[in-house]
Amino acid sequence: MRILVLNGPNLGRLGTREPEVYGSATLADVQALLDGLDGVEAEVRQTDDEAELVRWIHGAVDARSPVVLNPAAFTHYSYALRDACALLQGVAPLVEVHITNPHAREAFRHTSVVSGVATGVIAGFGIDGYRLAAEALLRASR
Amino acid sequence: MRILVLNGPNLGRLGTREPEVYGSATLADVQALLDGLDGVEAEVRQTDDEAELVRWIHGAVDARSPVVLNPAAFTHYSYALRDACALLQGVAPLVEVHITNPHAREAFRHTSVVSGVATGVIAGFGIDGYRLAAEALLRASR
Amino acid sequence: MRILVLNGPNLGRLGTREPEVYGSATLADVQALLDGLDGVEAEVRQTDDEAELVRWIHGAVDARSPVVLNPAAFTHYSYALRDACALLQGVAPLVEVHITNPHAREAFRHTSVVSGVATGVIAGFGIDGYRLAAEALLRASR
Amino acid sequence: MRILVLNGPNLGRLGTREPEVYGSATLADVQALLDGLDGVEAEVRQTDDEAELVRWIHGAVDARSPVVLNPAAFTHYSYALRDACALLQGVAPLVEVHITNPHAREAFRHTSVVSGVATGVIAGFGIDGYRLAAEALLRASR
Amino acid sequence: MRILVLNGPNLGRLGTREPEVYGSATLADVQALLDGLDGVEAEVRQTDDEAELVRWIHGAVDARSPVVLNPAAFTHYSYALRDACALLQGVAPLVEVHITNPHAREAFRHTSVVSGVATGVIAGFGIDGYRLAAEALLRASR
Amino acid sequence: MRILVLNGPNLGRLGTREPEVYGSATLADVQALLDGLDGVEAEVRQTDDEAELVRWIHGAVDARSPVVLNPAAFTHYSYALRDACALLQGVAPLVEVHITNPHAREAFRHTSVVSGVATGVIAGFGIDGYRLAAEALLRASR
Amino acid sequence: MRILVLNGPNLGRLGTREPEVYGSATLADVQALLDGLDGVEAEVRQTDDEAELVRWIHGAVDARSPVVLNPAAFTHYSYALRDACALLQGVAPLVEVHITNPHAREAFRHTSVVSGVATGVIAGFGIDGYRLAAEALLRASR
Amino acid sequence: MRILVLNGPNLGRLGTREPEVYGSATLADVQALLDGLDGVEAEVRQTDDEAELVRWIHGAVDARSPVVLNPAAFTHYSYALRDACALLQGVAPLVEVHITNPHAREAFRHTSVVSGVATGVIAGFGIDGYRLAAEALLRASR
Amino acid sequence: MRILVLNGPNLGRLGTREPEVYGSATLADVQALLDGLDGVEAEVRQTDDEAELVRWIHGAVDARSPVVLNPAAFTHYSYALRDACALLQGVAPLVEVHITNPHAREAFRHTSVVSGVATGVIAGFGIDGYRLAAEALLRASR
Amino acid sequence: MRILVLNGPNLGRLGTREPEVYGSATLADVQALLDGLDGVEAEVRQTDDEAELVRWIHGAVDARSPVVLNPAAFTHYSYALRDACALLQGVAPLVEVHITNPHAREAFRHTSVVSGVATGVIAGFGIDGYRLAAEALLRASR
Amino acid sequence: MRILVLNGPNLGRLGTREPEVYGSATLADVQALLDGLDGVEAEVRQTDDEAELVRWIHGAVDARSPVVLNPAAFTHYSYALRDACALLQGVAPLVEVHITNPHAREAFRHTSVVSGVATGVIAGFGIDGYRLAAEALLRASR
Amino acid sequence: MRILVLNGPNLGRLGTREPEVYGSATLADVQALLDGLDGVEAEVRQTDDEAELVRWIHGAVDARSPVVLNPAAFTHYSYALRDACALLQGVAPLVEVHITNPHAREAFRHTSVVSGVATGVIAGFGIDGYRLAAEALLRASR
Repeated sequence: MRILVLNGPNLGRLGTREPEVYGSATLADVQALLDGLDGVEAEVRQTDDEAELVRWIHGAVDARSPVVLNPAAFTHYSYALRDACALLQGVAPLVEVHITNPHAREAFRHTSVVSGVATGVIAGFGIDGYRLAAEALLRASR
Repeated sequence: MRILVLNGPNLGRLGTREPEVYGSATLADVQALLDGLDGVEAEVRQTDDEAELVRWIHGAVDARSPVVLNPAAFTHYSYALRDACALLQGVAPLVEVHITNPHAREAFRHTSVVSGVATGVIAGFGIDGYRLAAEALLRASR
Repeated sequence: MRILVLNGPNLGRLGTREPEVYGSATLADVQALLDGLDGVEAEVRQTDDEAELVRWIHGAVDARSPVVLNPAAFTHYSYALRDACALLQGVAPLVEVHITNPHAREAFRHTSVVSGVATGVIAGFGIDGYRLAAEALLRASR
Repeated sequence: MRILVLNGPNLGRLGTREPEVYGSATLADVQALLDGLDGVEAEVRQTDDEAELVRWIHGAVDARSPVVLNPAAFTHYSYALRDACALLQGVAPLVEVHITNPHAREAFRHTSVVSGVATGVIAGFGIDGYRLAAEALLRASR
Repeated sequence: MRILVLNGPNLGRLGTREPEVYGSATLADVQALLDGLDGVEAEVRQTDDEAELVRWIHGAVDARSPVVLNPAAFTHYSYALRDACALLQGVAPLVEVHITNPHAREAFRHTSVVSGVATGVIAGFGIDGYRLAAEALLRASR
Repeated sequence: MRILVLNGPNLGRLGTREPEVYGSATLADVQALLDGLDGVEAEVRQTDDEAELVRWIHGAVDARSPVVLNPAAFTHYSYALRDACALLQGVAPLVEVHITNPHAREAFRHTSVVSGVATGVIAGFGIDGYRLAAEALLRASR
Repeated sequence: MRILVLNGPNLGRLGTREPEVYGSATLADVQALLDGLDGVEAEVRQTDDEAELVRWIHGAVDARSPVVLNPAAFTHYSYALRDACALLQGVAPLVEVHITNPHAREAFRHTSVVSGVATGVIAGFGIDGYRLAAEALLRASR
Repeated sequence: MRILVLNGPNLGRLGTREPEVYGSATLADVQALLDGLDGVEAEVRQTDDEAELVRWIHGAVDARSPVVLNPAAFTHYSYALRDACALLQGVAPLVEVHITNPHAREAFRHTSVVSGVATGVIAGFGIDGYRLAAEALLRASR
Repeated sequence: MRILVLNGPNLGRLGTREPEVYGSATLADVQALLDGLDGVEAEVRQTDDEAELVRWIHGAVDARSPVVLNPAAFTHYSYALRDACALLQGVAPLVEVHITNPHAREAFRHTSVVSGVATGVIAGFGIDGYRLAAEALLRASR
Repeated sequence: MRILVLNGPNLGRLGTREPEVYGSATLADVQALLDGLDGVEAEVRQTDDEAELVRWIHGAVDARSPVVLNPAAFTHYSYALRDACALLQGVAPLVEVHITNPHAREAFRHTSVVSGVATGVIAGFGIDGYRLAAEALLRASR
Repeated sequence: MRILVLNGPNLGRLGTREPEVYGSATLADVQALLDGLDGVEAEVRQTDDEAELVRWIHGAVDARSPVVLNPAAFTHYSYALRDACALLQGVAPLVEVHITNPHAREAFRHTSVVSGVATGVIAGFGIDGYRLAAEALLRASR
Repeated sequence: MRILVLNGPNLGRLGTREPEVYGSATLADVQALLDGLDGVEAEVRQTDDEAELVRWIHGAVDARSPVVLNPAAFTHYSYALRDACALLQGVAPLVEVHITNPHAREAFRHTSVVSGVATGVIAGFGIDGYRLAAEALLRASR
């Protein structure tokens, strides 16, 4: 199963960004973690650019590819991203992943404009959340 | 690893309650699903009683046992349950699980008073969410 | 027609509780009032326990029994009760009854989390509201 | 007992307006239904005109006549109607009736500016709500 | 000076409506009170009809006549009346009068959609408020 | 194609009312503008009376006639008008027209209780908005 | 009749402060205006000091003296002043005066914490508002 | 004087629960503290069960017994408890006690649905708050 | 007349995106539709990129070119786009177009941060909205 | 132990101000009450002046003196007082006292800007609240 | 250039008040810092008294003197101060200074009622903010 | 000292955009202004692209370079930019600059999602704000 693993703004700094909050693992570690899963062919990408993220989702729609999405700060305001994700509904599943638990942080992080069009949400498990998402997609596809 | 899998009000009806929303699996299926996991000894319980749920969490605190919690409707108002869960912080991890994605449902389901004191949240994967939670706990404990 | 007449917290004090607000009739009077109705076999119950009320609703679901429910203070916050009532939708009718008119009282009594899943609502007629509810159920069943 | 049964805007379309929501009964059916009640002499009126409705309430005040009022859309904003209804308090009872259950519909229908000055409220029983209101008035007058 | 003294819904009941709140004076008393003022030719009118009130304001615009307006319950929601009053701005002054002090009553009476386009507001002086308004208009016109 | 062009309160003053805001054209100019359209037989009406406007909508329902509606101040609070317009849904199209752009004016003009049941909305084009609405209806009917 | 005419912060600048808003009259002109009234012995005072204003109200309570109060900016937040004014209730009347119409100005000026404990409110008549207030007090005392 | 000292959910963990917040004293220490008071016969109870707490309040109503109540998390949402406490009004005094100062903690702890029907509130003094409450009751009863 | 027709995020999917909501027409169809208008030389562009959209508006400012703008999801949060559009005010007209009627959809679509600086708004007419906008611009320019 | 007992605006009227609300005791009675306590040397002061109250708190900071503070109406808005009280944190304890229970009164009295920086709060015990506060301070100091 | 440097409540404690937040510099240090600026003759004053601060602003109006104002806690509620500052508009510039960055602190510090009538705002630079303000005033005056 | 001076959307239009609001200076003037400062080596950049701005902040993090940031419209919603700025905390100072005073403009400009993670804020001094920011950074670095 091919899975797109898309990451939003500032996640390219993972591992160096507030490591006491986000841990020291990097997106390369995420790629490695997913490479270790049988039956999953994951492609990890990151962008700070809302339009690029939107276009990647469009690509997933065309490819009918499942998506694991960590929208990062776009979570809280990007209706453009939300509308793109809505295009996936009925085409392929989309799992929203957060490395930390947003509900244990600042109030503005308690609102997600994306969750309403996601298949599921996983938050708070560090980068293991990506693996959980992939496993969930894998099992749901059987 | 021993894991308490605690379920809140109306979840005893799982499998018969709005199957088009919650699926046809039952809590017995959840138990069976978790019994199939290596290294996990799960005990699935359900209650409609807030006080009993609070006491089960107290028991987990005493046993330093990880908890998978589906608070069901208590999610939205039971500060008593929240305070009990807060007792677990620093003692053992607690994963909040929802069978459906609450953000794709009524507005009152978008608020959780429990998430702020949970280690992580998993929602929208049907009963597979319980397995994901158990796997996450297992891996985090290594 | 068998009807379950379920009453929430503090209603066991009916007749002694603020009689200038709630009147001097008791739940026994409610039972007597309903016993006087042809074609209705009512069973009046009361509990201060949210879980017990939830389980009674579950029983009504299994028995496909119409319910007259005075949720008392649970009206304003018990989503557990709401979810239980939602199980009745499409199975049997549920009438929400209030002895007084909540809209003529404190602001917090203007909100009901139960009404949205009730078949109908009757408020402000003292204990005669129970009889009206039973008559409505009786006629609707013909 | 003489009862004024007053109906607000668009209720003249009853029976043809969204019959899947409001049923196929008409106000003539309401009149017939009430004509069948012993001891009740009901007069069913309808208007789309707020001022006319206000004047009918004034007439009820002068006649000390009980009122059954379905304010329709005026429910949500007509403080003029509310003030008229307040004139009835202490003079004659007023029952607010809704054919459907407003709490199971759009959010703006969850607010009533009239309920606070009504004796009681009955909602969700189709046109049988008018009969329940009349019966309640009849029994309360004994 | 010719002054239109316009009164909104339910004010025809003045003198009989909640006399402990509004006093026992009637609109005829208001007319008499204003007839006693030198230099003022007042015409007191009342209607429960929003459209009629709007048209009277239109008439005042055409006649460039000062207006004393007691909008009664329309105060709180009639933007139609507000827009009509706005037509008077720059043409003739408009004084909003309330017999009681709305700020000492229910919360919904604390909001006026008319005040923003009135020249001035007088509240809480019983029917003497009409005289105060007339005197203010008279002096301002000199 | 026969089109009802209905106008709400204060629009009879068009051309004289705040010409710097609304322009100097009158409803007669609107009629003339629409008379110049091939295939359109427009009837322009205006009323300050909510009930009359509601009844005109009822007439349109019976005639299955498309409607161009400028609700003026009723836009912001008349749920009676909204309910009437809802009767048109599935029967004939309804276009909400505003001469000015309400979003560039006072905050209370940013909310429309009518838009949710309109087919479309056109705002900010002066009286040309009526022509645009008629053309849209004409083309949509082909 | 002795009347205390109390003025709050910045009103000592009257006549020079934004004359296009507040006019060019001064508090001395207010004193002169009231000196011209038969039967009124007015004492006009001004302070920028909340505590002094509170103490003047206390003095009025002891003297059972009617008060005309322009609270200026204190209108919007000084609960200390409100509590002082509440001491006057049942002892002597208090009229709240505003030179301009606060509802035609910034949103924060639409709220008064004082009005709820005032006998009446007069706004928008320039310094003539003080005379209107005095006349109202005079007539009410007869 | 006999005093019921009732404690809500999670307070059975007192002494072990977040001792840096709640201190290391236990409810047994509370009992001991009150046993040391002359003229007070206190009975300290704790429950995690809303219904049991409600019934204990009912018992206090029947016994006309003063109550010291630490509602813990129920403070913020249990209208059932509030209604029970309201039954005590005019029968016996009820003091709401909090070990910590809720206003110095999370925002949701700033709201109490119980305070409005309590005689008094004491917060922030650790378990000494119970003694203060008992002393206050004792002196008030003389 | 040269018109820039600018389209925001996800509109490149038009025709395939939720065709039951947006119809099956594509932006190429929009271009064709506008090519059929006499006197209009339209250039239809689309981007998912906020910055590119902002720059296109800048280009319109420099060219003093009228703009038809469908901001799509940017409607609800892009103040950057709003500020760009504000640069057009007084330079060239800007018409905001929506294919569907946002007021008949999710609540977050009821707010537009762009409308306040638009000349006019057209919504709910499918792709014919673009033609209506072009016609409006054409006529207004004469 | 030396304790400053500071009282805010209008409390100099204690005993005469609404005695049915505040009782007939005066601040002299408060002084006498505290003089009767062993080990306490209390100094009762009152001011209507926010700045003086702030300076008294500053004095307490310098003297490291415990404070009993009844902020009266300042409770609800004086952030200046709050900031002064915050200076005491870690220096000496501060107990906020209210003679009545603010939560059983008007809504604006439910908010305290001071409580968040107080050590504890005591409300609803009449002037005995001062004694309770002193006793609490005394015991806490041992 | 003569500049008034006015400081609000509790700023007399600068240097000793929470030095980890506000630093150890005092207002004397502020005076010294400004004395070191060429072309600036600064006078640093502080008061805890709202009325005194208002009067100092009045003095600045009369002297047409630029003002640097640190309103401290008055920032959040003193409309009296705001109205005084508004008197300066068009007369002399006013710079609002905060030693810390209020947006990085408690929520109630995010709102300023003064900023809307200030020329500019400088926050977060410790006492250097005063120097920056003075330099800005100096350069703007050239 | 090397300083990055980063400017958000539409600021490339500075000098031509609403010169009555923003002045006629351009970003080139800003560069020239900063070139005139001893000890400062400023690099002025502008972009309309959120992602580019985020990446520039990332570059500043890597270079440990102080930043002067005018986020323009991004101020009000770009949590992506906020998260990027948060990466600078503890690494290098960031000063938020606004050319105008946002609090004297539209309500949506009163909220900044960036200020909470900025070192300081300077607003309202035209382009001199950039110089003030640079001077502040320079002095703070000594």
